[in-house]
Amino acid sequence: MTVRLYDTRSQELRDLVPREPGRVGMYVCGPTVQSSPHIGHLRSALVYDLWRRWLGYRGYEVDFVRNVTDIEDKILANASPPEAWRAHAYRVEREFTSGYESLGILPPTYEPRATGYIPQMHELIARLIDAGHAYVAADSSGDVYFDVKTWPAYGELTRQKLDDMADSPDAPTRGKRDARDFALWKGAKPEEPASASWPSPWGAGRPGWHIECSAMARAELGPAFDIHGGGLDLRFPHHENELAQSTAAGEGFATHWVHNGLVTIEGQKMSKSLGNSVYAAELLSESRPIVVRYYLAGAHYRSSIDYHEGALVEAEAAFSRIEGFLGRADARLAGIEHGAVPGIVPDAFGEAMDDDLGVPQALAVLHETVRAGNVALEAGELAEAARLRESVLAMTGVLGIDPRDPAWGDRGDGVAGAALGSLVERMLEDRTRARAAKDFAASDRIRDELAAAGIAIEDTPDGPVWSLGG
Amino acid sequence: MTVRLYDTRSQELRDLVPREPGRVGMYVCGPTVQSSPHIGHLRSALVYDLWRRWLGYRGYEVDFVRNVTDIEDKILANASPPEAWRAHAYRVEREFTSGYESLGILPPTYEPRATGYIPQMHELIARLIDAGHAYVAADSSGDVYFDVKTWPAYGELTRQKLDDMADSPDAPTRGKRDARDFALWKGAKPEEPASASWPSPWGAGRPGWHIECSAMARAELGPAFDIHGGGLDLRFPHHENELAQSTAAGEGFATHWVHNGLVTIEGQKMSKSLGNSVYAAELLSESRPIVVRYYLAGAHYRSSIDYHEGALVEAEAAFSRIEGFLGRADARLAGIEHGAVPGIVPDAFGEAMDDDLGVPQALAVLHETVRAGNVALEAGELAEAARLRESVLAMTGVLGIDPRDPAWGDRGDGVAGAALGSLVERMLEDRTRARAAKDFAASDRIRDELAAAGIAIEDTPDGPVWSLGG
Repeated sequence: MTVRLYDTRSQELRDLVPREPGRVGMYVCGPTVQSSPHIGHLRSALVYDLWRRWLGYRGYEVDFVRNVTDIEDKILANASPPEAWRAHAYRVEREFTSGYESLGILPPTYEPRATGYIPQMHELIARLIDAGHAYVAADSSGDVYFDVKTWPAYGELTRQKLDDMADSPDAPTRGKRDARDFALWKGAKPEEPASASWPSPWGAGRPGWHIECSAMARAELGPAFDIHGGGLDLRFPHHENELAQSTAAGEGFATHWVHNGLVTIEGQKMSKSLGNSVYAAELLSESRPIVVRYYLAGAHYRSSIDYHEGALVEAEAAFSRIEGFLGRADARLAGIEHGAVPGIVPDAFGEAMDDDLGVPQALAVLHETVRAGNVALEAGELAEAARLRESVLAMTGVLGIDPRDPAWGDRGDGVAGAALGSLVERMLEDRTRARAAKDFAASDRIRDELAAAGIAIEDTPDGPVWSLGG
Repeated sequence: MTVRLYDTRSQELRDLVPREPGRVGMYVCGPTVQSSPHIGHLRSALVYDLWRRWLGYRGYEVDFVRNVTDIEDKILANASPPEAWRAHAYRVEREFTSGYESLGILPPTYEPRATGYIPQMHELIARLIDAGHAYVAADSSGDVYFDVKTWPAYGELTRQKLDDMADSPDAPTRGKRDARDFALWKGAKPEEPASASWPSPWGAGRPGWHIECSAMARAELGPAFDIHGGGLDLRFPHHENELAQSTAAGEGFATHWVHNGLVTIEGQKMSKSLGNSVYAAELLSESRPIVVRYYLAGAHYRSSIDYHEGALVEAEAAFSRIEGFLGRADARLAGIEHGAVPGIVPDAFGEAMDDDLGVPQALAVLHETVRAGNVALEAGELAEAARLRESVLAMTGVLGIDPRDPAWGDRGDGVAGAALGSLVERMLEDRTRARAAKDFAASDRIRDELAAAGIAIEDTPDGPVWSLGG
């Protein structure tokens, strides 16, 4: 029952040993709210939602912090009049929130915005300057840089030697001591809006990207915490720089580093120039949100996912096997209440999840249980079927793919859906009675009424089945 | 076509003359996220949503800022382990967001959190100290106070003389020059969490409530802007203090002050001790969100609303007259597309809204139009009926109560709601025909089918009206 995770820094599987027994502090890099969320953003957020849910299932109190980077070069570049940069960032932040909600990604314990931590960034930067690891640029830019040569451990996260590293792209080189030094504070530029500039001991300006996360993680989880997560593309320079800054400032920072794999589109990297980005809204229009979640959760979190046409159709087919069993079980087990049998995940499921969040293996256990449940239903072994139903619900619950969770239902059904279902079922009963009485005028009338409302009826051996729209 | 509003400061109706032609900057005091939203919070947010929509309809670009006060005495008091104060505030913030969304209240252009503006507050406080209008407390508290006696205009918003004012409740009096002085900065206290304390030129601490809004309004709308709004209960001391601080710091601040009336419960003030608070979640479980919106929007924004049992039933009946017309019109006007006739609000509606947002008068015009539309349908004057349908939709659109707006559909109606509406209307027509043919068995059967699905029918002079639930 020990949770193990692959720690990027040590490059090995490690037991999770939280600093405070029973409590896990976890910081995850959230989006820079510059443009609409795409499939890669959703996947990354979902990975850490699964981590968090599993740690919760294992009894940990999880302090889960995922930030919003709301000040950055690209936000200023993408905001265009009459929309101010703040409004742009806020609108995009809401798009992310909505995408997360659609996929059942739980809200974090706290979601700090970078602009809310300017004083804390100043404090960290001042400490770095005092310790000799940062300096004010020699030109008049007002920039402050981290001095990579003063920090021998620089490169430890990604196992790079300083000599092998490329120049830092995030600031001009004039005034820098070394081209690989990165900006902690960026002096204000005349072409940037005044509202994107804060006073500082080093002159007006705005924070560098990396210091934002160091300051937010410290403020919300303390100078040392358990897990730092983010996409694989953030390992360098972002996470390397976070680690260097925070440790050079004398802090423990993260015990473990976890990185999730990226999403490619039919074998290619998503990019604006290729125009192949799959945005959250498109993905969610392709299939039901619960199926999209099932699909994105299904690969191991460290693997990359290659999204291709038809991927969601396959996921729909696989997920509907789970739903099908639950539907059949409910129809047959009418006398056996939910919860009458304790719902716990099978040992093999737990072992798979404990082993670096092995969702693919865990899903295999889930599908095996579904098959066994169908067999039990066929054989009329109802006590066994009820037990397996609760086991399936325990697994779908912790994976966030329980089809009965009202969170899924709230998006599209609700009161009107319930009334419609009741009304249609009642009318179909009337129709069956009318047909039995050979009153075909009445049965045709009911069919026509339903058809006019966009409701199709199909007669099956199990009786009439209705569907909406199409 | 000039919009007029009742300006609390001048105590008279005034023409809105924006500082920049065609563009209105509006700051509204949002919630202190200490506990769940109640009916009064929803009403206040809805009032400014209506203002914003109407100004938008009149062609203004509206910069609409509504803040979140996320650091305050009560937040620290209400947060309890293991939940940190930030997490508490964030959770309550999400409850507010969800309540707003349920009622179709549009997200603001930007929604600043107070904790994101500490440097801007410092800057304002420093200016007030320099100008001689604020001082560091004479004790060792680390508090900074606004010196009300140095500002002769203090009291102008609420027309009070300094001598008539009560002592400021928000800080102890030791170290104050005058008991009515109010805190701009509150020195850190040992019993408060370190994360709720920021360094400042006057020692570690946290901001006073009033300076937060002055700093956020300035940062997002500039030193002078058009409209400041909030609940009537915020006029004193909150708005009086905001005005004093900002003007004493040399800023123009708001041209107009607008205040909305409060909500009482069966004649009594809502209060924790009376236990009579009606929370957003309860209210929204009483009726459909669109009906709750119709109800809360229906009173004039400056009137108080007395919520009582049955209020939403009345609102449901009134609103369903609008829906009933639209449903019948769609059934009869199958050949006439929406938008074939331009949808503009009647002059009388526009005049009512221009006159200090006269929603009650505007709703009277809406209901008159519905009646005229029903008459046109009865008389078979389909072109006129189509014109009136578009007029009704223009009015429901700008009031945010268009039943076809997909935003409502996402929360419980949507495809199922449309199908239900279509099916029910069709069945009601069958019932009317059956009654005309004196086939009472058929008309009773239809009534019973609908009743079994939870749909009630009421016969009115305008024809049958149906409603869901109850």
